[in-house]
Amino acid sequence: MPRPGSAVPPSPSLPPGQNSVPAGPVRPGPGASAALVPAAAEIRAGFWHSRRDVNARTSIPQGPELLESAGNLSNLRIVAGTADGAFRGGYPFVDTDVYKWLEAASWQLGQRRQDHDRLAADVERIVSLVAEAQQPDGYLNTWFQLLKGGERYKDLRWGHELYCAGHLIQAAVAHHRSTGRRELLDVAVKFADHIDSVFGPPGSGRPIDGIDAHPEVETALVELYRETGERRYLDLAGYFVDRFGHGLLGGEAYCQDRVPVREATNVEGHAVRQLYLLAAATDLATETGDAELRAAAERLWDAMTRTKTHITGGLGAHHDEEDFGDPFELPNERAYCETCAAIASIQWSWRMALLTGEARYGDLIERTLYNGFLAGVSLDGERWLYVNPLQVRDGHTDTGGDQSARRTRWFRCACCPPNAMRLLASLEHYLASGDEDGLQIHQYVTGRVTADVGGTPVVARVETEYPWQGTIAVTVDEAPADRPWTLSLRIPRWCSDYRVRCGSTTYDATNAPVRDGWLRLERTWAPGDHVVLDLSLGPRLTTADPRADAVRGCVAIERGPLVYCLEGVDHPGGGLDDIVVDPTRPLAVEHRPELLGGVTTIVAAGRRRPDEDRGWWPYADAVADSGQSGDPLELTAIPYYAWANRQDGPMRVWLPTF
Amino acid sequence: MPRPGSAVPPSPSLPPGQNSVPAGPVRPGPGASAALVPAAAEIRAGFWHSRRDVNARTSIPQGPELLESAGNLSNLRIVAGTADGAFRGGYPFVDTDVYKWLEAASWQLGQRRQDHDRLAADVERIVSLVAEAQQPDGYLNTWFQLLKGGERYKDLRWGHELYCAGHLIQAAVAHHRSTGRRELLDVAVKFADHIDSVFGPPGSGRPIDGIDAHPEVETALVELYRETGERRYLDLAGYFVDRFGHGLLGGEAYCQDRVPVREATNVEGHAVRQLYLLAAATDLATETGDAELRAAAERLWDAMTRTKTHITGGLGAHHDEEDFGDPFELPNERAYCETCAAIASIQWSWRMALLTGEARYGDLIERTLYNGFLAGVSLDGERWLYVNPLQVRDGHTDTGGDQSARRTRWFRCACCPPNAMRLLASLEHYLASGDEDGLQIHQYVTGRVTADVGGTPVVARVETEYPWQGTIAVTVDEAPADRPWTLSLRIPRWCSDYRVRCGSTTYDATNAPVRDGWLRLERTWAPGDHVVLDLSLGPRLTTADPRADAVRGCVAIERGPLVYCLEGVDHPGGGLDDIVVDPTRPLAVEHRPELLGGVTTIVAAGRRRPDEDRGWWPYADAVADSGQSGDPLELTAIPYYAWANRQDGPMRVWLPTF
Repeated sequence: MPRPGSAVPPSPSLPPGQNSVPAGPVRPGPGASAALVPAAAEIRAGFWHSRRDVNARTSIPQGPELLESAGNLSNLRIVAGTADGAFRGGYPFVDTDVYKWLEAASWQLGQRRQDHDRLAADVERIVSLVAEAQQPDGYLNTWFQLLKGGERYKDLRWGHELYCAGHLIQAAVAHHRSTGRRELLDVAVKFADHIDSVFGPPGSGRPIDGIDAHPEVETALVELYRETGERRYLDLAGYFVDRFGHGLLGGEAYCQDRVPVREATNVEGHAVRQLYLLAAATDLATETGDAELRAAAERLWDAMTRTKTHITGGLGAHHDEEDFGDPFELPNERAYCETCAAIASIQWSWRMALLTGEARYGDLIERTLYNGFLAGVSLDGERWLYVNPLQVRDGHTDTGGDQSARRTRWFRCACCPPNAMRLLASLEHYLASGDEDGLQIHQYVTGRVTADVGGTPVVARVETEYPWQGTIAVTVDEAPADRPWTLSLRIPRWCSDYRVRCGSTTYDATNAPVRDGWLRLERTWAPGDHVVLDLSLGPRLTTADPRADAVRGCVAIERGPLVYCLEGVDHPGGGLDDIVVDPTRPLAVEHRPELLGGVTTIVAAGRRRPDEDRGWWPYADAVADSGQSGDPLELTAIPYYAWANRQDGPMRVWLPTF
Repeated sequence: MPRPGSAVPPSPSLPPGQNSVPAGPVRPGPGASAALVPAAAEIRAGFWHSRRDVNARTSIPQGPELLESAGNLSNLRIVAGTADGAFRGGYPFVDTDVYKWLEAASWQLGQRRQDHDRLAADVERIVSLVAEAQQPDGYLNTWFQLLKGGERYKDLRWGHELYCAGHLIQAAVAHHRSTGRRELLDVAVKFADHIDSVFGPPGSGRPIDGIDAHPEVETALVELYRETGERRYLDLAGYFVDRFGHGLLGGEAYCQDRVPVREATNVEGHAVRQLYLLAAATDLATETGDAELRAAAERLWDAMTRTKTHITGGLGAHHDEEDFGDPFELPNERAYCETCAAIASIQWSWRMALLTGEARYGDLIERTLYNGFLAGVSLDGERWLYVNPLQVRDGHTDTGGDQSARRTRWFRCACCPPNAMRLLASLEHYLASGDEDGLQIHQYVTGRVTADVGGTPVVARVETEYPWQGTIAVTVDEAPADRPWTLSLRIPRWCSDYRVRCGSTTYDATNAPVRDGWLRLERTWAPGDHVVLDLSLGPRLTTADPRADAVRGCVAIERGPLVYCLEGVDHPGGGLDDIVVDPTRPLAVEHRPELLGGVTTIVAAGRRRPDEDRGWWPYADAVADSGQSGDPLELTAIPYYAWANRQDGPMRVWLPTF
């Protein structure tokens, strides 16, 4: 097991590229108790390279125009006094669309692509807008300044003022880490100092003892502390995190105010709020060594995955209040599974992985990345899903709003698209880590990984056709010549059969040196040393804990990290409400390069259930179904992430067996 | 089959009690094409007598105090200029709480109980308040008058101004029919005339071509036409009904504006809005003989029951927008099933029963009355459920708002309590009907029924311990001596086994003269003639159409018209998420007079599923469950209507079989 090692101190004074910790999100500070330190990585080919290319070529470049047409940029100009007009947008947090786009674009700038200059100009222009809009004392929120006569912090339950500040700070940290430029960081520091002058516990001399009902500023303040070394920001984040759950916001779970984080036994309330708060709690545990916060975070992550996580990694069972719902309340049609919640889950789990060194966080990240998150972005990068249901019924009527099952160009509440952009643009920072003893590869992506291993750089190349094929080849390019270290590869939880070839040694699942999900290969590595991990991707039928009532009598098709679904378009002549899968028959795998950008499909044997007419009342004594009746049907499953890229129609992940 | 007969004309000039059509809701007007005419009935003992006694002694008398403390009455005083103060309440439709209470109290006054005088005084006082608050031109809405500077009809999507007028009109009709007094009817007529001067189609000379997004005024206007004979009100109702679905309100299903009623193929959108609109469409078809509207109503009722009705009769699958949801989307935990929707369903179905003469509408009324509706009222008549879920999970955290799974004394949106009061207070008007050929008994309640059969009164007594026992005795007390007529008794759809004794003749299910749900006994009846219908109440296990995915692999326990549920309080030592019922074992029935006001319980054999620990991830390859493992457990089911009357805790209607 990786063990707690000393973290690499932040070096905000170093120009980008010269810091041994990569310029990505989550950079544990000096003295942090994290087990692992993020490794630098590049994504050079394969599945995620394609998705990121679409993000870089289409999604991010369209941002400025979309923000212009939705009014976000003009709001900033009006506040700055450089334009006339009225506030546009429906929410007090519309500024965050700008900030999240700036964060995405900043991470993207760190990759120095050929289209760098135009993007850099867009960023510079929009950073200037933000700087010009900032008030002399550091405050900035266009909704309150334009619609509320400059009123401040009177409506912490709904105002989102600190939430907006948080996203501004995160964008600034990204901009500074990626480009070395201080313009936005200066704005963020000024805003953070203003907040620090206003908010604090009784007796602190600050006028307001309060919290923003949408957590976000907390984790941003930790990152600002990491970037600047200014301890006040960490302290302020800690104050905020611990003030939730004490009724300052009325005690609602929606606002994360029903119970303090330290005492909570399961995740609850608004999913994104809960997850951002827990990311911050984990950051604090990392930076301060707070064992109680760490225990709470571990306990809540465990409860969340055991009882409140959809098979796609999606989180949030209720449309109403975007709430987590009760344990094992995991509906299909009304799964909320907001794209932002998937992103927040990945962000939190990555912090947990770094803090604890455990492999299971990478398991959830993988599942969420390939399924619950990625479904939120269309294959062409131009359309989005806000909610990610696991079933769309025959005859579904869709009103086409933000929470529609149809991909949409932009939302009235446009939180998800720029959030997805920032995750994709920073994805290489969620792949690998290092500690004093070695290098850990959490996610399998073709590219290059550089970790600091006890002060010495280790460089490895990864080559794989994952997730379509299970072979992962790792080649050591640089390593210290004189001492052993451990190459750790995550064995995914879904995988029970694998082989490993390491030089002349081979292992399989019966004898490989695997503990708690990590395959640990320790030796004195030399450049050119080669490891091949071969994960068996045999397609599988999965059931749920029987307390998940919504999917009783159903199976899901999975292969590797991918969850599959059926779409109506592949099953002409009827919908999907009456299909039945035969779980005793084998699954057929076919890679179809022409379909949906190239996907491996899985064909299962099934049938259409005959219509047993119960008359006008659909409840009656049990009607015998022989299990054989109905027309045989080949069920063609596609990866869930690729659904809703052809035409509207039914979809389902869970397939009835009767 | 009852056939279309001539309806009895309304006689608004007759004092109450002297009209051959009883003073209840839904009184088809002259020339109406209804097959049946409501019969007068009294409820004298038994199940519903007890429930109505609680309504009369507790619920209704508490109304004035609750309306006072919630601010509804003071709003009227402020508008009338007889008090100072600010508007109180959160919605533009708070006035309807007053109107629905007035309607309930008016029906109650028609029953002349010993506590009549105090109630009559309360009604007189509050009627005066309403009359004083009315504007000189007939308009009245305290929200718009006090909060919106008297602005009118500018926000038909959310304003509820005509919805409020509708409930005022219904209260006035009830008040006039029950008491013969005109004070409130005069207010209603003035308001209706005002509306008729403002709303109308292009070219009508009326300034506004529009509809209220919450239907209600339509069916109220039909009733006002019936009460006054003024045809303009019927025409106005017809205009309104046909303007839905043409985009006047933006085209949303929520507002019933996506598709015209005449073209709709399934119920959709906000459930109560849809049902009130369909009640009005049915009223119009009844009064005008409009065959297209009738066909639409029949088609939509059929689609609703086939695809969108919970086993309790509850309607509405989404909390979000209080929406019907998709076909066969029938969740348990998040079943919305608003109490008001159950009431609206009963009101609509009764109109359908009168229009068509068919028995199946009585089937749905029965199911809804005993289950989806009655669960909304606590046994003591003091607490209410707004939503009526079919499952509350172990570990459910409840925020206690209007949509809570906890009974509440009053709601911020208090639509349901006075709505339930008015249904209970008028329940005797939903039980029986007459036509030229005879008397039809739709619901079995101990009491007395008086119908007009071809111009001659027929009186029958009904005695029964229904729903606890299945024996229903009907004795003819008065009948024309010289000609045959038909006594029709509804054979409930749930009942496949029954016996009939009629004088010396006996029948059973194989040879009884039953067609389309009506047992039809035709003869020349003499006073003292006696019929005994004996419905077999053997408890039964029910399954759902397999397209209702949420309950796959589950059964519900039913007995007679009652749907049963388990409550946590009857199953100590664990929750209900892990229970399994054995459908092969017999069900045991026990009447327990001491429990929940006296209920018949049903005990089923079951077990607690052993905890199969899947680790932190609840999805995995199928784990074999022998079907036998786990601790055996007696599962004690109580009638669903009686749940949530002891202590908070889990509840479930659908029981897993594995």
